[in-house]
This record gives sequence, structure tokens and C-alpha cells, in this order.
Amino acid sequence: MNASINELIKDMTLTEKASLCAGLNMWMTKGIERLNIPPVHMYDGTNGIRKTNSDDEMGITTENVPATCYPTGAAIGSSWNTELLHEVGEALGNESKEMGVELLLGPGINMKRTPLGGRNFEYYSEDPCLTGELGAAFINGLQSKGVGASLKHFACNNQEYEKMVTSSEVDERTLREIYLSAFERIIKKSDPWTVMCSYNLLNGSYTSENEHLLHDILREEWGYEGVVISDWTAVNDRIRGLKAGLDLEMPGPAGYNTKAIIKAVESGVLEEEQLDKSVARILKLVERVTGMEDAVPATAMEYHSLARKAAAESIVLLKNENAILPIQAESTHSIAVIGRFAKKPRIQGAGSAKVTPTRVDIPFEEMKQLAGASIELGYAEGYPEDDSVNEEMIKESVALAAKSDVAVIFVGQPEYAESEMRDLKGIDLPEQQILLIQAIAAVQPKCIVVTSSGTALAMRPWVQHVPTVIHSWLSGQGMGKAIAEILFGQVSPSGKLSETFPVKLSDNPSHMRIRGENGKLYYREGLFIGYRYYDRKELAPQFPFGHGLSYTSFAYKDMKAAQTETGITVSFWLENIGNRTGKEVVQLYVHDEECTWTRPEKELKAFSKIELAPGEKRQIVFELEERDFAYYNTKYNRWVAESGYFQIALGSSSRDIRITERLYCDFGKEEVSFHKFSLISDWISDPVAKSVLEECLDEMNQHVVEKIYLNDEFVGFWEDGPLIKILQMYGQTWLGDRSPDEIIEELIRKVYERRINV
Amino acid sequence: MNASINELIKDMTLTEKASLCAGLNMWMTKGIERLNIPPVHMYDGTNGIRKTNSDDEMGITTENVPATCYPTGAAIGSSWNTELLHEVGEALGNESKEMGVELLLGPGINMKRTPLGGRNFEYYSEDPCLTGELGAAFINGLQSKGVGASLKHFACNNQEYEKMVTSSEVDERTLREIYLSAFERIIKKSDPWTVMCSYNLLNGSYTSENEHLLHDILREEWGYEGVVISDWTAVNDRIRGLKAGLDLEMPGPAGYNTKAIIKAVESGVLEEEQLDKSVARILKLVERVTGMEDAVPATAMEYHSLARKAAAESIVLLKNENAILPIQAESTHSIAVIGRFAKKPRIQGAGSAKVTPTRVDIPFEEMKQLAGASIELGYAEGYPEDDSVNEEMIKESVALAAKSDVAVIFVGQPEYAESEMRDLKGIDLPEQQILLIQAIAAVQPKCIVVTSSGTALAMRPWVQHVPTVIHSWLSGQGMGKAIAEILFGQVSPSGKLSETFPVKLSDNPSHMRIRGENGKLYYREGLFIGYRYYDRKELAPQFPFGHGLSYTSFAYKDMKAAQTETGITVSFWLENIGNRTGKEVVQLYVHDEECTWTRPEKELKAFSKIELAPGEKRQIVFELEERDFAYYNTKYNRWVAESGYFQIALGSSSRDIRITERLYCDFGKEEVSFHKFSLISDWISDPVAKSVLEECLDEMNQHVVEKIYLNDEFVGFWEDGPLIKILQMYGQTWLGDRSPDEIIEELIRKVYERRINV
Repeated sequence: MNASINELIKDMTLTEKASLCAGLNMWMTKGIERLNIPPVHMYDGTNGIRKTNSDDEMGITTENVPATCYPTGAAIGSSWNTELLHEVGEALGNESKEMGVELLLGPGINMKRTPLGGRNFEYYSEDPCLTGELGAAFINGLQSKGVGASLKHFACNNQEYEKMVTSSEVDERTLREIYLSAFERIIKKSDPWTVMCSYNLLNGSYTSENEHLLHDILREEWGYEGVVISDWTAVNDRIRGLKAGLDLEMPGPAGYNTKAIIKAVESGVLEEEQLDKSVARILKLVERVTGMEDAVPATAMEYHSLARKAAAESIVLLKNENAILPIQAESTHSIAVIGRFAKKPRIQGAGSAKVTPTRVDIPFEEMKQLAGASIELGYAEGYPEDDSVNEEMIKESVALAAKSDVAVIFVGQPEYAESEMRDLKGIDLPEQQILLIQAIAAVQPKCIVVTSSGTALAMRPWVQHVPTVIHSWLSGQGMGKAIAEILFGQVSPSGKLSETFPVKLSDNPSHMRIRGENGKLYYREGLFIGYRYYDRKELAPQFPFGHGLSYTSFAYKDMKAAQTETGITVSFWLENIGNRTGKEVVQLYVHDEECTWTRPEKELKAFSKIELAPGEKRQIVFELEERDFAYYNTKYNRWVAESGYFQIALGSSSRDIRITERLYCDFGKEEVSFHKFSLISDWISDPVAKSVLEECLDEMNQHVVEKIYLNDEFVGFWEDGPLIKILQMYGQTWLGDRSPDEIIEELIRKVYERRINV
Repeated sequence: MNASINELIKDMTLTEKASLCAGLNMWMTKGIERLNIPPVHMYDGTNGIRKTNSDDEMGITTENVPATCYPTGAAIGSSWNTELLHEVGEALGNESKEMGVELLLGPGINMKRTPLGGRNFEYYSEDPCLTGELGAAFINGLQSKGVGASLKHFACNNQEYEKMVTSSEVDERTLREIYLSAFERIIKKSDPWTVMCSYNLLNGSYTSENEHLLHDILREEWGYEGVVISDWTAVNDRIRGLKAGLDLEMPGPAGYNTKAIIKAVESGVLEEEQLDKSVARILKLVERVTGMEDAVPATAMEYHSLARKAAAESIVLLKNENAILPIQAESTHSIAVIGRFAKKPRIQGAGSAKVTPTRVDIPFEEMKQLAGASIELGYAEGYPEDDSVNEEMIKESVALAAKSDVAVIFVGQPEYAESEMRDLKGIDLPEQQILLIQAIAAVQPKCIVVTSSGTALAMRPWVQHVPTVIHSWLSGQGMGKAIAEILFGQVSPSGKLSETFPVKLSDNPSHMRIRGENGKLYYREGLFIGYRYYDRKELAPQFPFGHGLSYTSFAYKDMKAAQTETGITVSFWLENIGNRTGKEVVQLYVHDEECTWTRPEKELKAFSKIELAPGEKRQIVFELEERDFAYYNTKYNRWVAESGYFQIALGSSSRDIRITERLYCDFGKEEVSFHKFSLISDWISDPVAKSVLEECLDEMNQHVVEKIYLNDEFVGFWEDGPLIKILQMYGQTWLGDRSPDEIIEELIRKVYERRINV
């Protein structure tokens, strides 16, 4: 079929080829009728389909065609359930087909560098392994239905503030280990049909024309052969973009750029071969989206049921003292339901990902249904829409809570706080909500707080006063039902935080400079985002990464770890030792005991979500690769795993490690190489080099006043000093007109000669 | 006299000129007998003179010629006393003259980025204002005696690990505001005769050949005309060095480089004019060091008395619950003196700054003398020299402490821990010392801990168990007497911490990556070192920057702040409201309430140390300049003070602010300028630009489906977006073949035209 694409290209005029490299309008590529090339229809979203009413509008603030609204990325990221992601992907693929959507512009997988990121609600996690596994599962599900994914935003668009004019300044190691790692994993495991570049610049060059990113890494290293699309208007210099490998500009028609491409080819600035490559990739995409069967008809309610199930897997039980949850129907006669979000739930964030849902479960109504007739549900709004302080509403709420058996308070980030194009102003609840919780907790010990937000919340002014907290994220149109099921125990909660909840905003590593300056935003914390930072700083978060409670409990036993020919195998037994069925998310972290370069204290390398009945146990086996033990070494520009001891830790959260094995892993070793600035410690670490050095010093000592011997005192002081400086310091009267560079070269030559002769 | 230097140069051969650019041996420049040019004699140190027994040896681990050992930089930095620094400078100048030292290789003034820095003990502070004022005072004192200073290490040598092969990677703003700021202040206020470059690279280029640092900033911006010397062996590429402005290579003779210089001039690679400039500066130095009168004869004891006084001003009383100190001679019959440092005090650190002292005060002996015959002093060694755990020594100490009225425990970093060329491994006390303190505190409530170290200590395992802590730093040969005077109340302590003492090492901002990788060490915390970090992170230190207790107390009253033609004047009254004479260090911090760029919460901009008798009060006036309100803006490459509200805070420490004034400061305002990527918020912030934009949108709206109006909804979403992206997003069908760049250019042209016509 590639052959036929090549033939098609031969038939195309330069103008046809150039014009194919931009859309027809807001949401379609250009078809070419003459050659039977149909257009491709693509639409937003990450947690549902945002299909506009017309292909000529962005429609970002209007109602669009109704579609199923699944949990946002932040929510479903906390499910840690790859099967669920696959299932949601399939369902979205099917719904896309039904709606005439051939390419769905998601998933968004950027790392959560700061909890203030305006699009954090769209993204899965602060960890690349978790993000990568979930993203790959979603795409495999979606694309199995013949609908393409667009993996975005590539790369380092981790906040919204002036993102279209700001360069994310990220060192190469951090880029590889943190910001590109999930992209790499997803591309290798699911081959998304398209990758969408981001708006920002990366290290000084727009990602839409960044050769290092799009060509060197994406195409050459990772071997990606799909289409790279611009985020909408992300194109800057179209010719540079094409050269770097940006195939498709959106939106179109971008007539001026079609003209520019033609001119560039004609003038020799752009090779036509380069243009042909992009055209071939676009034609391959056309082929892919048209090559699959039709959708399986499904009802809105069938999709809705999946949305509910997904929400139930995403919600996280953060705290549950005195086993307040699940609510015991027998002993409960009245429940105070407090907070506007109980009747007007926040199911998603704003911007291009905002779906017009087919229906929305209302938490209060769903609770009423599950509570049954014997439990009376009261309601108080609790806080006004504008979140101004209102004492009357607090009084009313307190009165209701005081006379009820249990209080359930729905709070969260206000609707206006979370949107694309603007970052959050803070992660505390609005003052009125804090006062409300404090007042209710003072009169009602059975106080359950249900929080909603698409990013981490700080809870320090109130969390210690309440026994129970559920974080419900922004969990889509089925969220209301899912919350009710967890409250009443139909479902045992199984979500785990996919991002750290800090005690306060300023605990976050990126807090020091969140805004770009002079167009540059330095990723100063480097590798240390999320739990990597809290570990390194020995700083206790409010709730750690990977944390989430269940109504049952699990035991970890009989761990074994061993290195084999192909990798490292880790196995253990998980047992449900509680008295009801539940799911556990088992997390495997790797700790490098000693490394030449600084590494995070531990890193997630595998996980699994397992359902077990009471008393049931199962052996779980993880297969790790050398790469799982490696860091990105910028000296050699490759991943390096250093032989030595590693700790492999299995935990129920990043701070609840249950069982650990220490394992020596052999990844080979390299011979010391020498250069002009090799240190004394390098020279004496190699027996051959040491003898060469000693001979040199013997000779030098005959010509200098202060003689040098490789004794403890000398080495103790100078081991971090390069040999060349020793010659400059102590050898001047011996050197004469010979430069120390010459001497070093001579010594190195001797070392290599003797090595050969050994 | 410059004229005669120029004539001298005309008489010199190329070989003479080239050879003058390196030393004769380890410690001298080359004289040229033929032209009556004498050599210059220079020797280490920062807190005393380290004159070797021969000019052909480095002598870093041997005994050298005895000289007065003053408090190390870290210690005297905590005196906050510019007059004292001036006096010590004068005394060192005099002693230098007596010893034939014409150039003293100090002071060292690098910022304390990490408490692990191996040379931290040599440096003054984590704050550039404090460092700058102290350094300038010291140099003015020293040079007033006709002895040159060498301001070092220029720049960004903030730790020792592989410093000779590591590039400090520092963004320009951080460089200017933190790492160069003290150098700039000192150069402007004291014109040091020489500046010594550091060993490290800065942003990829050795500082010994860094044109941006040595030429653009030091020479061009700051107008420095003195000699730039290499740190010993810091020369890498001599020709690049000369071009950048490195005048003198040390040590010499570096015959190979003399040859290289000659060859470079002859081949035209180096202009002879460039070489002449360096030669002229070296000759000017020769002129300076020979142009002053002789030393005033002084005895070793006279210098020693000053060393004692300086130590007494440097020692910091960190904690003094229940007024344990000063020790009341009347009610005290026995004192347990515990800890090896009581008899073997650590008065300084190791490496090139290590002085062979003329005598050393022993704390135990000095205490005995001040205690008098009526108080019995017992002694227990407490911990062995190798700091291994030894229960016997603890038992012995506890027994002694239990039967005494008071216990004074001397502890600190071990001798081997603090040295040039290697960083510290940690900032906790050795385990034996911690166990010792804990055991003694359990039996003796009157427990005084005297700590010694040249860098911050972490005290979390024990500090809460003891009522009193004195930090004595490494305070030189008079330290023993000074400690005794403070213990018995002859002196009221007046030192204030010149660096933050964190709760634990990992609290430090640089903790995440302390080692360079692939030869690069990123200064990732940027501006936020020291208290700037703890403020920003809302993180409580164990003892904050500027903290130090006194035996008396002070009131701050009647603050006034006003902007005048020439600057900002701040005045207030300080009163001694205690019942004994004492000195207070008044600290003035500036806080910018709102700034386009992120700034530290507050910054030290002035300070003063004032002695007052009981009941005495004095008005203190600070004069601030616009620069004191400015940050370094890398967009304009200059210091910018933005008009607006500032808070001026006066405090007894950085976390004990006593009185604050809010002041509107007018520093002018700039007109908005427009460019390709100007944001919607820029366009609507300027009335003329807004009207131009509205006309453009009116026209565009006639050709597009989705029309754009500058209403709240649109602006709320798009204000951070550049106008060009709006045209790309919504204007495609209107643009046709016209590029959005053209449209923007046209709009900008209109704005500037209309501005002229207004």
C-alpha cells in the first residue's frame, strides 16, 4: 500500500502537495477529489468528543454536539487501570465512528509539574510510567476501532501562562527522564496515528519546528512514522516546521503557507523530497482512518454506564477515620447533604476539552436513590456561586448538619478556576468553603468531605478536623452515581492519587518561579517533580502519590527478585485480608543505592490493579528491563544502567512501602577513559594509569623543591583535581617550555599502549 | 604616572612583556632588573597571612611562617560590623608589611549556595549586600596600609566537588542579583587592586578566559582597572585568557605560555595592544604596592587582642532559655566543661587559607581564668578524635555534668570535615556528639552547648533538649577568650547569623543536585538561596538568617520612610530597653509588593551595628538608592525598579521584623512596545492599540463564520494569547494568501503612527 502512496505522490502537483500540508478549515484536512483522496475529520477532546456544530468554528465557549463525557485525565489517571483505559478508548472509538469523527485529538499526557497548570485536569499524572501505560492502553483501545489518536502536547507544555510565547527551558536529562519518557513509552507501545506538537517553545525553538524534538528524537531515535500535527495555530515558521518534520498545519487553509511552501521548493530552500515525506505520512493517515469497519451501534445509556464505572474507579478515598465510610444504612436515619456541587457537580474543566454531555448524574439524586426511603436527606447550598463569604449559608448548613446523623459536604475548586489558557491562582479551597467545613466539623463528628478539582488541593486549614475525605476529581457525567455508590458501599473505592497532594502550594518544587521571564521558563527542579521531589526533600505531603484507601485491606507476601538473561523478574503474593471484595493498586518502585549521578530516591517502574475476594490471594509477577534501572546520561547521550545494588520496593502508595528486596544487578562495566582533564582519582583508579603517573612524578620530583607522592595526605586533598593542574601547580620548574597539555597527551598515549600490551 | 608606565612599556621587548604576564615562582611576580621593575610578593589568605617558608612551595599541608589568625570569613561575617572589618583589614595590612607581603590573596566572598561547600568557612554570607559591605570595609582597611587585596573567587565557585572541571550553569539574572552582586559592590566601594578568577567554568567557559565575565561585566560595565589574577593553576587557554582580560597567571614561570603569547602576537592571533593593556595593569600594581609608607611596629599580642575582639563580635548566641547565660558567678560553684574542643579548639578550616597562628587561646583555660578561684571547673573529653561512638566517654561526661551546677559542652564539625578541595558530607554533628548532648541534657538542665563549624549546622536531634546554644564558628586564635567572655558576661553577644541554619540538610534549596553531571552544575534554585528560599517556600529554618540573641534588648520606634529627589530615606529610633550595654544589628529588608517578574519575598538592603547603653536611644538613618529596589531584567539587560508599592521592614533578624512601612516609589514607567508576539492583554492595555485592533477585528468579522469581539468571555480566555495566533485561529478565511505576520506589522505601524499624531 506504501507503493500506491508513492504513486499517488508522483501524480500530485507541487501545489496539491503543499496544500495538503494544512487543513481545509478548522477540523478537516483537504481532500483532493481529482485523486480520490478524501478529507480526514478530526475533533477535540481528551475525555470525550467535542464536535462543533460547524467545521468553520472553534466553538470553545459554546454548546457543541452532545457526547459522552468520561472522567477527565486527572481523574482516570487515578484509576491506575490499564484495562479500563482500553475500554474507554474502545468506547470513544465507537462513538467517534458514530459521529463521523476519524481522528480524536487526544490523549493529553503532559507531566504535572505544578498543581497550578490550567490543563492539569486533562493530564494523567506526575509520573511518566503511570502516564505512559495508561496512555498506551487508551490509544490501543481507540485505534482498535479505526479512529486515530493524537498524542499531545509534544512537549513540555506544563502550564498555561503565556504558553504561546514562552520557552520551556529543560535540560536534556530531565527532558528524557521526565518530560519525554511517557511519550516514548506510548509511541513504542501503541503507535498513535498522530502526535500533536505543543504551543510553547522548547529550549528556544517552537516545538512546531524543533528539529531536536521532532526529528532527532521522535523520528530518528523512536522511529515514529505517523503524522505530526500542529496544535491549533502552533505553526510559526512553516518551512522550518516541515524540515523538522511537522506534517500538518491546523487549522487551515493557511493559504499564505501553502504559497510559502511552493516558493521554498521552487527556490531550493526546501527539498521536494522533504515535502513528499510529509505528504506520504498524511496519505497514510487517510488510508488508516478509512480502512476500518463501521461502529457497533450503542445507546447513550450504554456509554453512560461505562462513564459511571470509570468514575467509580477514579475516585480516591483519602482519609477514613473511625470507618465512617461506607455509610451504614441500618444505623443511619438522616444525612445532611451540603454544598452546591451536590446538585451542580463539576464533571470537567473548561477549554478545548469541554464536552457537551449526553446526561449528568446529580450526586444528591443518586444518593437519594441509594439511601432508600428509610433515610432522610436534607440539603443546604453551603456557598454561593461566586464563593463570597456568606455567614447565613454557613448557619443554615450547620443547623442541618447538627440535626442529622451524618454530614456529607461537597466542595472543590470553583468552575472558573480550571481552564485551558489560564493557570490556577491557588490550590486552597475558597474561604467560604473552608469556613463551612470547619463549622460543620465542630458540630458533626460524622463529617464526610467530598472534594472536586482537576488538580491537587491543599487542605491544611481543615483536613485535620474531619474524619473522612473523598477526592472525586472531575469525573465526568457518571460521577454523581459513582460518589453515591462509594458513600453507601456498593463500590469499594480503588482510586489512588496520580499526583502528590502537598500540604501547601509553596511546598511544590516549581513554586519558586512559575512564570516565564523574558520568554523563558526554567524547569529548575529538574528531575525532581512530584513524589521525586518530596522524597528528595524529606518533605511530608498531605497525601502522597499513589495513596488511596479501600474498604478492605491487602497483605503483601513472599517477594522474590532475580536477574535473568532477559531482565529482572519480581514476584510476590497479594492477599485480600479484609472482609469484602476490593481492588488494590500494587506499585513497584526502584531505588538505585549508588550511582555516579544523582537520582531520585525511587521511581515507579511497574504497577497492577488487582481485584480480590475476601481471603483470595494471587501471585503477581513483574518483568523489568535494563531500561527500568537506567538514567539518561548526557555525557554519552544514552540511557545507562550502572551495575550495583538496587532496592525494589512494593507498596500500596509511594509512602506505604510494604515489602522490599535488595538485588545486585549486573549491567556490565566500562573501562576508564582518559582525557586532558582526568582527575587524580581517575588516574589512580586504574592500575596501568597509576604506574604511568608514578613514573611521571618520579621524574618531576627530581626538578622541583616541593616533591609530590601519591600518599594519603596528597590524594586526600587533590583527588578531585585534574592531573594537569597538579603539573601546573607543582611542576613549573620541571616543565620549562613544555606545556602541561603535551605531558598529559604523552601520559595518556602510554596508558593506552600499555593496556594493549597487557 | 600612567604616562611613565606607557613609556616603560615602549621600552619593553615582546618577550619581557609576555613573561611579565606570569609569576616568577609560586608567590612572586617577575621583576625586570633592566627596567627597575621590582617583583610583587603575594601570599594566601583570607583570615590571616599564610606565608610559606620558601617561594617555591605551595606548602598547603605544612606549617608556615606564624601570623595572626583572625576569625574565618564565616565567623566575622556574623559580626555584621563594617568598622571591625576595616580594623582587621588595617591590622592585616600592617602585619603584611612587616612580613614582606605586598598583596594578600583575599578576601573570599562567594555566596553560600549550599552548607556543604568546602570553603564556606572562608566566605562571609549567603547575602550579597552583607557580603559586599563587609568585603569593601575589609579591603579599604587593608589597602589603606599599602597592601593590595585580591577579591576572590570570581565567580560562582560555590562548592569544591570537581570544581576544576565543572561549569557552574547560572542564568544571567541570578548571576547579577546573587553571585556577582557582592563583587560589584566591593569593586565600586573599595577598588581592590586585584581580582582573582576562580577555578570553575561559568556557563561553559573557564572564568580565567570568560569574556562575558572578565571583559563585558568586570571591565566594561563596572569599569574595573585593576589586575585580574588567575587562581593558582586556573589558567586553561592563556591566549583566550589574555583576550578576555586575565592579566597575571599564577604560579609561574609558565614558560610554555610566555612562548605561546609571543607566538600569538607574532602571528597576529593576539594584538600587541591587548598584551600591553595587561602589562600596564601589572605595572600599575607594582607602582601601587611600592608607593606606601612602612608598617607601624606592633606586637603579636596587640594583633592577638584584635583577634579576640573580632571573635567576640562574631560568636552568635542562638538560644538562651531561662536566661542560663551569662553564668552567674555568685550562684555557681562548679562547671562541667565537656568536649575535646574545649581544650583543642577548632579555630579555622583547612587548605590555602590555613594560618600557622602566633598563639591560640584555649577555651578551658580562658574559662578557668574568668571563673576565678571560687568556681571549680571539671573536664571530660566527651568524644574521641575519630568521632567513633564511645559509651565510656559519655558515662564519664554525664557523671561530671550531673554533679556540677552547669554543663558547657563543646562540640562541632570534626577538623577533617572542612577543607578546601572537598565538600562536607553532611551538616549534622557526629553521632557520638549527639548522644553526648542528649545524655547530658537528661541529667543537667543548665546545659550550654557551644558549637564550632565554618558552615551551618543541623541540630534537630538535640537542640530542643538544651536551653542554650552558642555558635562559635571557627573564630581564629582569640576564640577561646571570646567564648569565655560571653559565657561569663564580660561581653554581651552581638553576632548574628550570616547564613540560615536549616532544620535539616535536605531543606537546603541546592540539595537536589549538588554534584555536577557531565561537567555541568546547574544553579537550579536560581535567586532563591539562603533566606530568599526559606521565605519563598514558607519553610521554617532552625535559626534564621540575621538571628542572634543579646544579654540586653532593644526597641524599634518611630519609623519614617520617604522618597526624595535622590533616593529613599528611612529613619527610626533604636533604644536599649534592657539593663546592660549591648550591640544590636539592625537589618533593613525591602519587599516589592507587585512586580512583573518573580522576586524574593524580601531582600537585605542595609544594616547597621549599634552599641547602646541601658536606656540610651539613637536615631538611625538609612539612605537607599533606586538600585536597592531593582531587579535585573534580562529582557532589557539592565536593572529595573518598577514603580509601585514597596514594604520596607526593619528587623532584628530576617524572621523577627519589628517595624514596617509601606511606601509608593515612583521610578517612572515605560510605554508598551509592540512586536510580532504581543499578547491580547498588551493590545488592549494601550488605548491607541486597542482601537487599531478593534478596527482590524471589524474587518475580519465580515469574512469569517465565528466572529470575534473583545468582550469579557473572549478576553478572559485569550488574554495570554498573542494576537497573531488569534488571526491564525479565527481569521483563516479572511487572510487568504496574506500572512498573519504582514497583518501584525501593518497594525503595529498604525499604532506608532497614531501615537505620533496624538
